[in-house]
Parts: sequence; C-alpha cells; structure tokens
Amino acid sequence: MANISTKAVQMPASAIRKLVPLADAAKKQGVKVYHLNIGQPDIKSPDCALDAIRNNGLKHVSYSNSAGLIELREGLVNKYYKKIGIDIEVPELLVTVAGSEGVNLSLEITCNPGDEVIVLEPFYTNYNTFAFMNGITLKAIPTDIRKGFQVPPIEEFEKAITDRTRAILVCNPGNPCGTLYSKENMLALGEVARKHDLFLISDEVYREFCYTDEPHFSAMNIPDLDQNVILVDSVSKRYNLCGARVGCLVSHNKEFMAAALKFAQARLCPPVIGQIAAIGALDTPQEYFDAVREEYIRRRDFMITRLNQIEGVFTPMPNGAFYTIAELPVDNTESFAKWMLEEFRVNNETTMITPAASFYKTPGKGLNHARISYVLEVPEMVKALDILEAGLKAYPGRTI
Amino acid sequence: MANISTKAVQMPASAIRKLVPLADAAKKQGVKVYHLNIGQPDIKSPDCALDAIRNNGLKHVSYSNSAGLIELREGLVNKYYKKIGIDIEVPELLVTVAGSEGVNLSLEITCNPGDEVIVLEPFYTNYNTFAFMNGITLKAIPTDIRKGFQVPPIEEFEKAITDRTRAILVCNPGNPCGTLYSKENMLALGEVARKHDLFLISDEVYREFCYTDEPHFSAMNIPDLDQNVILVDSVSKRYNLCGARVGCLVSHNKEFMAAALKFAQARLCPPVIGQIAAIGALDTPQEYFDAVREEYIRRRDFMITRLNQIEGVFTPMPNGAFYTIAELPVDNTESFAKWMLEEFRVNNETTMITPAASFYKTPGKGLNHARISYVLEVPEMVKALDILEAGLKAYPGRTI
Repeated sequence: MANISTKAVQMPASAIRKLVPLADAAKKQGVKVYHLNIGQPDIKSPDCALDAIRNNGLKHVSYSNSAGLIELREGLVNKYYKKIGIDIEVPELLVTVAGSEGVNLSLEITCNPGDEVIVLEPFYTNYNTFAFMNGITLKAIPTDIRKGFQVPPIEEFEKAITDRTRAILVCNPGNPCGTLYSKENMLALGEVARKHDLFLISDEVYREFCYTDEPHFSAMNIPDLDQNVILVDSVSKRYNLCGARVGCLVSHNKEFMAAALKFAQARLCPPVIGQIAAIGALDTPQEYFDAVREEYIRRRDFMITRLNQIEGVFTPMPNGAFYTIAELPVDNTESFAKWMLEEFRVNNETTMITPAASFYKTPGKGLNHARISYVLEVPEMVKALDILEAGLKAYPGRTI
Repeated sequence: MANISTKAVQMPASAIRKLVPLADAAKKQGVKVYHLNIGQPDIKSPDCALDAIRNNGLKHVSYSNSAGLIELREGLVNKYYKKIGIDIEVPELLVTVAGSEGVNLSLEITCNPGDEVIVLEPFYTNYNTFAFMNGITLKAIPTDIRKGFQVPPIEEFEKAITDRTRAILVCNPGNPCGTLYSKENMLALGEVARKHDLFLISDEVYREFCYTDEPHFSAMNIPDLDQNVILVDSVSKRYNLCGARVGCLVSHNKEFMAAALKFAQARLCPPVIGQIAAIGALDTPQEYFDAVREEYIRRRDFMITRLNQIEGVFTPMPNGAFYTIAELPVDNTESFAKWMLEEFRVNNETTMITPAASFYKTPGKGLNHARISYVLEVPEMVKALDILEAGLKAYPGRTI
C-alpha cells in the first residue's frame, strides 16, 4: 500500500475536535451533552446577514475575485474598519476563508521553514498546527494562571527572540484564556517588533468581545509599524457566522498583500454565499453588539463564579472572548474529559470540556487545565456545571 | 522592512487571474470584455440548490463537522455516487473547500517535499501552484495538440517514473484541453499505479461534461486499486455553484482519509451555506444535466468550428469539460492577450483569453497556445470570436 507523507503522519490531530466522536457516541445512546468545549455561540446571527442570503436574487453562484467581492472589501473598509478607527484602503484588505486561512497565510508568507514565531502560552492550539504545516517553530512565553494570564513584561519577549525569530503572533482578546491586551501592552510589543524588525501578526477575531471599559486597541494603530503589522480578522464570532467561513487579512505592507493574493488565487475565491452574508452583516446595528456583550458578561460572571465555587477548581476572570482556562483537580484533563463523555452521567446528561495541554508548548504544562467556553445560556450552564462538579467528585483520577 | 518568506516570493502568480486587473481597467473605460478566459459558466444553478439557501430557516450559521455536514456526506454517497456507480461509505468521503483544497490536500498527504507527481501536459495550471506550495515536482508527459491531446501510450508513463515518483494526477475530463480518458486509458493507468504502488489522484470535477456516447469511467472503478485511488470532486461545475466552494475527497484508503481529516480540522469546517446549497443540489433532476450537456455541445461545436476558420488558428475537438487549447498565429499569447485588453477594441468591445504557457512545464512550450472557454451563449461567442479574429489580424506580433 502506498505510504502517505511524513507531514501527514506527523500532522497533529485537533485537540478541540478529537473528542467529538465520543460525544457523538454518547448522543447516539440518547445522552444530552452540554458543550462547554467549543467556541460555537448559541446567539443568533444578525437578521441583516441572514436576510442577505435569503433575498440574494442569485441565478448562479459564481466565483468572486480571489481577494473577495468588491462590495465586501469596500464595505469592510468604509463601514466597519473606519467606524472602529482602523484606517485602511481597499487594496490593503483581502477576504480570506475565515480567520483560519488568515493565520495560516500569515505564517506561510512571513516565515521560512525553521523560523520561529513567538506566542504567549497558552495559545489557540491551531496556531501550533499551522506552524507545523509550515515547518515553523512556535516559541511560547509562559503566562501564569494565578496572575490571570497577564501579558508578561517585555523583557520576556526580548529573551525569547533569536536570529530565527520572524514574528510575534498575538490573539487579542485571547482564545483560550480571555486575555485582553492593553494599549500599553500593544505599544510595548510594537516597540519590540520595530527594534528587531519582526512581523506582528494580530488575530483580533474576538474584538467585539471585550468586557472592560477600555476600548480595544488594535495592532493596526501602533504608530510607525505599518510595514510589520498583519491583522487577522473574521466575521465568524463578530456576527455569529462561524459557518460562513469569511474573514480577512489586513496590512499596509504591499509586499505581504501581493503575496497573499498569489496564495488566494491558487484557491480561486473565498466562499461567495458567506461573503453575501458578510455584506449583509455590515449593517448590523450597534444594539446587536451591545446586547451580545451584555449577555456574555452575564455568562462570564456566572461561569467564573460558579467554577471557583467547585472544590479544587481555579480560574481567573477573563476580560475578553468567551473562554476561560480552568485548573481542575484531576490527574489529566484529557482522561477526565473522555471519562465524562464515556462514563459519567447525571440524569442521562454529561458535560464536555476541552483538555488544554495542546494549548501549551512547554512539555507537561497544562495537563490539569481545561478550556471552558461560556457560549451557552445561563440556565444551560447551571446544569452543565452541576454535572461538571459531580463528575469531578466521582472521577477516579481526582487529585483531592 | 521585514522580509517575506522565500516561498511567498517564489510563489507563482495565477496565469489565469493575473490579467484580471487589465480587464478591470478596460471595463472602467466602458469597454465590454468577452470572457473566454475563465471556467465561469453563465448557466444558472439548479433551483433546488438556490431554494435550499433561501429557505434554510437558519438562526445562526454554525460550524459544521470538519468533514462536512452529515446530510451532505450521506446525500453525496447515497444520492449521487451510488447513482453514477461509485460505491463508497460515508467515512470514505470528506467535504472540502471545493476541488482546490482537494487537490492541494491530495498532494500534501501523498508526497514528501522533493517527490514527483506525473501529469499530462498541458495541465491545469494550479496543479503546478499546489505542487510548488508542497515542494513537489510535477513531471509532465507531453501530449500533442495535432493528435487532439490524446493520452500517450503507457510506456510514456513508465519512462517518466523515478524512485521519487509518488503519484499520477489526472484531470478527467481535462482542463485545459478537454481530453476524455477512455475506460482503457484508466485501466492502463491503474496498472502502472499498481505496479509501482503509486497514488492515482483523479480530478473528476468535470464528470458531467462528457460529449461522447461512452459513459465516464471513474478512477474509483479501477479494479484492485482501492488503496491507491483518490478522487477529487466538486459541486462547482456540476451544479454551476463555483462560488459555493464545496467539493469532496473520496478514497477507500483509511490512512489517507484519517490524514485528510486532520488537515480539515485545522481549518475547522467547509463553508456551511455552500454545503446547504450542495445538499439542495442533490435533488437536481436529470433533465437539468441533459439540457446543460446539450447546450455545451452546441457551444463547443460552434467554438471549435469557428476557431479553426480563423487563419493560422488550430484547435482539436475536445470531448469533455468546457475549454479548448488553441494554437494562435502569434509570437506569444500572453503578450497578445494583454494587447487585446489594453489596446484592441471593436466597437468598444474586446475579448479576453488565457495564455497557456503556464499550463506547460516543458520550457518554451505552449507560448503560442491559449486556453479558450466555451462558457458563453453562442450569440456572445459569435461576437467574441469576430473580435478575436480581427485582433489576430491587427496584432503587431502576428506570425503569419
């Protein structure tokens, strides 16, 4: 039998999705599974986005330009980015197949195989996957759960830089731990990037989900770093259009954008029906965002309080996105998560969480950490967390 | 300024799309451009596909499973592939972001950097792009325009095989020259693949566009080659849903499919609204395909006859897809295509064609070849070809 490639063999499986078959098996047995494991909000998409698909009047679904439909590119520049204080021209924006393609292309275009990219640990696990796919090494700077995963002093970044370092990749606000970078954090990072001439890749797909009074400070607004900043964005979270698979790459760096277009041309175009939804979504009223934000603050407050009430559980207060990393009193959160799905039931229901070890690069770190999303309504979370608490008490591998 | 990667610098620009800015510029001047350059049919998508999007009843556009919506996977297996005599199970099918992702993943999963893949020349230019992205070398076996680009004898394949050869990649029916592989061709290729234990990657996205009386013979039906065949498919052409960005990878090889799923998980999921259209499209009545086929035969017959009437032009009769490769009496079809867009007008109209050199790997080959699509209605093609003929007479670099 013909062998597959070394890359295909070594390609890491998704830690977020690899427990899905166990959840499916539980559901087949009639078990209700509470999904605290994924970033799939239950909040509805704006009507204007859904109406745009329903009333599109299409006769055939043609290719768009590889860089995206011009109406979407212009709309993003003039209706969205201008409003939030990011000043760009249309050629500085390319529509991608969601944030995933944006991150992958950013790494592929900025780094040669063997190069290093600095991230804060814990980080979104697929950063590691995309780095692997491009032969890049992630250099992870640890952050401390007990200090609320705050951004470490800039000296830590300086220490991590080698002659192979090409970029710093941040997620702001952050998946998986909800870290929100302050303006000061971003300016300091900008200084490091400028000093060492590094790319600063800023994944801001959770921009609308900030829970402090400080406005979000985009990497695009760091002064004098025009040629180094790459913004990764997406409509997935902003408008609850995860399945649309539409995002964008933004940069003032012409060389970067020209390269991105070449890669974009190879895959012909981003999904057009999703782009039509995204065009519709540009008319989303502010009240939609306000209501969503309020709802997430309510969910977060409940989730964090409740988690910390469980014996042996600790999680800090996240200031953005809709996840938290929690320390659980178990030997290994992956074994625990599997056990919950396979064996533990309360009234024929169970709770699913994401083991967080794959969000860490440092060996052995995060083994008792889980990523927990607060994307369900509070009454659902009440039940999910009661089950989690009961599971933690009954789990044979508990450590307290 | 931070430098971009070597790969990004060397990444080939799309030959098909690189003239687009010139066409856009012409249109801005009010010039009508006849697009004989792209595979973007003007035929409408089936109503059932469009209705599926309009009446979807979605409240929010969630992620699907990374392998695709189960309704689509089951529907493709039971409603589509079963009907056309391809016998597969659901786990042997993974929904991709159109055929482009399918080809790229097939190469990435079957080949290590430095490996070789055999193709027939001329080939779809993005095969070369995807090969480049994966560090793979395409080994092109020439075919002859004067012999209608027919599949060469099997000895030519044997001669092209080295110890680095990992796969044979065919497009059947073929873009860009409309070659249709006979059952005998496919069986012979199967024998070579079996003998040398090569993967046979079969891009069959134009399967519904065959113009002989012989039924299409899929690589999936080559006996005793289960573990080596990978089918790349797409709804783009079949249902005129190019912008939906939905296709699939099919293989009986479990190791291949498991690897494909890992890559699929990294990009989370294929476009969901496109998948909904594709589910709707499964109910497309046979009359739709019959009518489309009849229309394309009409267009092809007109196009080929008319092209061969132009002095110095030669093109053979294609038996599938909706393109032909034509030899033009010019020094260089790229210069000619640019000149048409930039300078040549008939009543403020011009015609756009695709220079075909990038469909060849052999240096210097195809310089006077163009890929010409017959995706417009005959009355439009009449005008487009009159302009092409006039352009060929007026072009300063003409060779006759």
